[in-house]
Amino acid sequence: MAKRITLVFVPLVFSLISYAQVNNLYNLMPLPNEIRATSQRVGIGTHFCLAVKGKFDQRIYAEASRFVRRLSNKTGIFLDKLGYIGPQDTCSSATVFIQIKRPGKLELGEDESYTLETKPNQIVIDAVTDIGAIRALETLLQLLSADDNGYYFPGFKIHDSPRFLWRGLLLDVALHFMPVDVVKRTLDGMAAVKMNVLHLHLCNDQGFRVESKVFPRLQQLASDGIYYTQEEIHDIVRYAGQRGIRVVPEFVVPAHTTAILTAYPEFASVKRNYKLQRYFGVFDPVMDPTNEKLYPFLQKLYLEMSSLFPDKYMHIGGDENTGKDWESNPHIKAFMKAKVMKSTADLQTYFNKRLLPIIKKCGKTMVGWDEIFHPGLPKEVVIESWRGNQSFYGSIKKGHPSILSYGYYIDLIQPASYHYQNDPIPDSVKLTAAETKLVLGGEATMWSELVTPVTVDSRIWPRTAAIAERLWSPQKVKDTDDMYRRLDIASLRLEALGLRHISYKYPLMRQLADGYDIKPLEVLVSVIEPLKIYDRNEGDTMYTVFSPLTKLADVASPDQPEPRIFNKQVASFLINPSPELEKTINEKLTRWKENDSSFQQLVKKSPVLQEAASLSENLSKLAEAGIQSMRYMHEHYNPGKDWLQAKMDIIKDARKQGGRCELQIVDAVQQLIEKAVASN
Amino acid sequence: MAKRITLVFVPLVFSLISYAQVNNLYNLMPLPNEIRATSQRVGIGTHFCLAVKGKFDQRIYAEASRFVRRLSNKTGIFLDKLGYIGPQDTCSSATVFIQIKRPGKLELGEDESYTLETKPNQIVIDAVTDIGAIRALETLLQLLSADDNGYYFPGFKIHDSPRFLWRGLLLDVALHFMPVDVVKRTLDGMAAVKMNVLHLHLCNDQGFRVESKVFPRLQQLASDGIYYTQEEIHDIVRYAGQRGIRVVPEFVVPAHTTAILTAYPEFASVKRNYKLQRYFGVFDPVMDPTNEKLYPFLQKLYLEMSSLFPDKYMHIGGDENTGKDWESNPHIKAFMKAKVMKSTADLQTYFNKRLLPIIKKCGKTMVGWDEIFHPGLPKEVVIESWRGNQSFYGSIKKGHPSILSYGYYIDLIQPASYHYQNDPIPDSVKLTAAETKLVLGGEATMWSELVTPVTVDSRIWPRTAAIAERLWSPQKVKDTDDMYRRLDIASLRLEALGLRHISYKYPLMRQLADGYDIKPLEVLVSVIEPLKIYDRNEGDTMYTVFSPLTKLADVASPDQPEPRIFNKQVASFLINPSPELEKTINEKLTRWKENDSSFQQLVKKSPVLQEAASLSENLSKLAEAGIQSMRYMHEHYNPGKDWLQAKMDIIKDARKQGGRCELQIVDAVQQLIEKAVASN
Repeated sequence: MAKRITLVFVPLVFSLISYAQVNNLYNLMPLPNEIRATSQRVGIGTHFCLAVKGKFDQRIYAEASRFVRRLSNKTGIFLDKLGYIGPQDTCSSATVFIQIKRPGKLELGEDESYTLETKPNQIVIDAVTDIGAIRALETLLQLLSADDNGYYFPGFKIHDSPRFLWRGLLLDVALHFMPVDVVKRTLDGMAAVKMNVLHLHLCNDQGFRVESKVFPRLQQLASDGIYYTQEEIHDIVRYAGQRGIRVVPEFVVPAHTTAILTAYPEFASVKRNYKLQRYFGVFDPVMDPTNEKLYPFLQKLYLEMSSLFPDKYMHIGGDENTGKDWESNPHIKAFMKAKVMKSTADLQTYFNKRLLPIIKKCGKTMVGWDEIFHPGLPKEVVIESWRGNQSFYGSIKKGHPSILSYGYYIDLIQPASYHYQNDPIPDSVKLTAAETKLVLGGEATMWSELVTPVTVDSRIWPRTAAIAERLWSPQKVKDTDDMYRRLDIASLRLEALGLRHISYKYPLMRQLADGYDIKPLEVLVSVIEPLKIYDRNEGDTMYTVFSPLTKLADVASPDQPEPRIFNKQVASFLINPSPELEKTINEKLTRWKENDSSFQQLVKKSPVLQEAASLSENLSKLAEAGIQSMRYMHEHYNPGKDWLQAKMDIIKDARKQGGRCELQIVDAVQQLIEKAVASN
Repeated sequence: MAKRITLVFVPLVFSLISYAQVNNLYNLMPLPNEIRATSQRVGIGTHFCLAVKGKFDQRIYAEASRFVRRLSNKTGIFLDKLGYIGPQDTCSSATVFIQIKRPGKLELGEDESYTLETKPNQIVIDAVTDIGAIRALETLLQLLSADDNGYYFPGFKIHDSPRFLWRGLLLDVALHFMPVDVVKRTLDGMAAVKMNVLHLHLCNDQGFRVESKVFPRLQQLASDGIYYTQEEIHDIVRYAGQRGIRVVPEFVVPAHTTAILTAYPEFASVKRNYKLQRYFGVFDPVMDPTNEKLYPFLQKLYLEMSSLFPDKYMHIGGDENTGKDWESNPHIKAFMKAKVMKSTADLQTYFNKRLLPIIKKCGKTMVGWDEIFHPGLPKEVVIESWRGNQSFYGSIKKGHPSILSYGYYIDLIQPASYHYQNDPIPDSVKLTAAETKLVLGGEATMWSELVTPVTVDSRIWPRTAAIAERLWSPQKVKDTDDMYRRLDIASLRLEALGLRHISYKYPLMRQLADGYDIKPLEVLVSVIEPLKIYDRNEGDTMYTVFSPLTKLADVASPDQPEPRIFNKQVASFLINPSPELEKTINEKLTRWKENDSSFQQLVKKSPVLQEAASLSENLSKLAEAGIQSMRYMHEHYNPGKDWLQAKMDIIKDARKQGGRCELQIVDAVQQLIEKAVASN
């Protein structure tokens, strides 16, 4: 076998700006299983063509046509061959030649492997299924390179297949609805990084988001008129399927059902005037599992919904049941007593056991959040763990197929590096072969309490590409610096697909600044991030479904490159204070210091920015403290304890939130301050 | 009656940057019929609420709710009152109080008038119909102002009503398809500038874009799978109707029917192997009007399509019939001879007369392009003039209700000022009262040969807002400078609605530059525009429906502010050479001159930019010539004839296209050069 280049040892010599000048062999994301450089090279010109041979699902034609269009859009080349790829395209000397053994099925565990090789004047893709070929096309597009002579594919030989079978993204369309075009571009992004499950969270206390013909009250009374028609669901499922992506629907029961109970209050545990919930959080409304009429209702509902989603898995939620409404209903209490149930968790397991045959009758495998993992739950139920690794390995040890979401909660605004390091089977965990097989994979979760169709891309991308790599690439691929290098490149590729995680900011900033000149706002936004974990929506009561999500914390995005780079520069400087770094750091600090006066001018004409005024002022003071520290270090002058104390007060202020955001460079400046006092 | 401020005399003292610091009374677009400033002022806080009273269509609740959400999104205010505006909202002390007399109908000539007045602590809207109230809400949102004390509505009294009844935008979804979300955001923009007709051009040689249940071959064989389902059409019509916008469909016959003939070749005049046309232009395929089976087919087709579009008007196209296929068919020739027809135009009039009762049977008034205006055409047929004012006034004189599109062809990349000056009834034209009544209004036409869903906003907006004002505001409103001042502001408001005419550029530029650093490209793009009129697609053969529209000419947009401002500055300088202007002009020229070296670096790594290399080089030389001219003028030195000749060669080169674009500052620099030689 040919000598393989282990990718994690690729030298990190490519700067962000110049990456396109090298060929893109080591800019792939996710990194393939095996890659080897060769000396071949295939130029791309107007004669470019693509052919497909073998047995396959027709989706390959649609995806191959999309590949050709993307290639043409990127290179600007007007291709001689007009139209779509189809059965007529079988020429074995085509620029890209695809050979497929059999039609791929949209099922867990389907073969997604491929080989991709540069031959003289040709790229050859071999795949067992068309889904593998589709993965190969995404890799190939990432390999597109250019130099003075034009566009080309470099020489390589790639063997690739995924590490995990379930590489999912949960998109919550219940808390804030996401129109079809948002779902579609999300699917485009997922396909680009080889994810294969879109988990749609379709109902919650705030709304039921699918048209039901059996129970039309659901959309009529419990959606505010905001839902997918069945035709739209078909369209989404088809669009995903073309990209080799399964769609797993979630209809959460028995809690988080305020919407369903608004339409059908007779199934509630407590009589109330049910109305759609306008806040976000955990609420008491819950279905009454002792009501025998509930089960035929659920059977009809899940049967209708199952007919819309051909995938073999059905997610029933099962999370965050406070149990209070069960406790407060004497009839339910009596029922629990009669059945010798010790807790409401026992009652939920009873409910789940009643639900399981219903889900099976729909032809589906049941999936639920880890709250349902409770003694007595049949092993065939798939557990999705969100509350911790403990429950994840716990459910695996008990024999449940399991999906890891804990550590992939992208709504919590943590950096890509955090998610990237979250391996479903880390070295520290020892599993048997049988247990390892139960680790289906993982899912990034885009809960939508605080995102809208305008901001959602920035909460999903590019960070989810790092999670996609964690779930696809070999375990040994874990160099965070190299991940970030490639993530910056992947981010642009995702943008070219129509994703707006970069561009969404600018219209919002122009709206906030009420004008074309957004520079002072841009400078501030580049060094802040929204409050993380659950801090932004303090006590779950600051935001409702009607709150404006057009403000500072919405323009701010997670994992900003500016502070990431600055913090690294400061760390380097503290170890090795080079004049170049000193200059760079001083320039940045000066820009931040001087930004405040023009920012305060913006605030005067645009009151919506008032909430950011203190943040900008604190940034200025912080930067000034940093500049002083740099000067004292330069002059080898120790400013002394009083100075330190004064600066630490500034640090303290700089840690305060403003507009539900926080500065991301405080630690670094604090280190400079402390070094100034310590080192001279 | 109170003294009115005639708006065209408002002093132009507001700069682009600071407009928000003044109240927005004179920033409206379109300008209202009458406006008067008062000393009242209504602050906007968390207690803001809105109420509706009277008799009206339910659409006002949806639009009022949308108004409240937009207000909240703009101001960032979390309103106390959660939810949607509905029948419960009748409180007569609400911050915005709307009174409506009767439900509005989506019909030509419906009352759209309103009055809007600031009272103590309240804004009161009075309208005959809910459609008038919707127009008022758009005006009110434009009046939102801010200062140190927060957001407020200034004091005013407005009486407003439109000058013309038909204020349309044609959106061509046949040549390049536009997905539903594009249509919806276009409708949002139209509503914001009070347009009331969306003319959908739904089929052409390149495709038939509506699902037909009667003739499913149309979408199956003649759409490439790219069409609106009937559900989507209903959705578009509902969405438009909520905004008081009528949707007029166009199904063009008898020419431009390659798509229909691909599905139903039996109706063609010449037997051919019909396939969807991939080029753009005028082609010979045409229906055979002598085929008696054609009319029952058309009757069924128009009947089904009429059922999807409730509007009373049906556009039958009728344009650009070469007549060649009629001439070349002996049977048709014989038919013409037997009926004593002198030309194919006579035959088309025969066809139109056969079509008219079919359209009437569908309950519709027939509309067609001015080619169908030919002796013998019944007067009830509405003529849409695109070939010139001549045909427009000609059809009016003959008694046809008429719509002006000539002069509003926004696909031709002309500046807003050109369209703005195109008055449907200019002073030079004298019409009788009856004739004036026949002038229904006008339509901007967004033909989509060279636009995609990504670029289309930049071809429609903001220029179409100037056309909207021409059609809504009094004739006397015609100050071009003031139009541009307000257009810059309107452009940001349109962006806040989700339109991407500003932001679409940046992802495309990052794709073109293949990286984050787009500065050199941005500088070039700011001074170029795509080739105008029909020059970009030379001979109709450079582009097909598959051509990449992701290149320089797509990133470039019409009516760029940078050259517009520079050209004005040069004109001012030549009259009055102030040191400030001299400095500004020199700075700009220097930036353009120096841009080329970094631009050429971009070209090296991104071959797609190769086509722009000469343009950038020419810009640099042009700018240098400008700098020399400025210096000579400053030094009162006449560089002489040889110098002039050398510079004129540069000017000649600078007029050459590059990447289907041209520099927009050549005339101004030429003036500087000529002045340098002439003045010293």
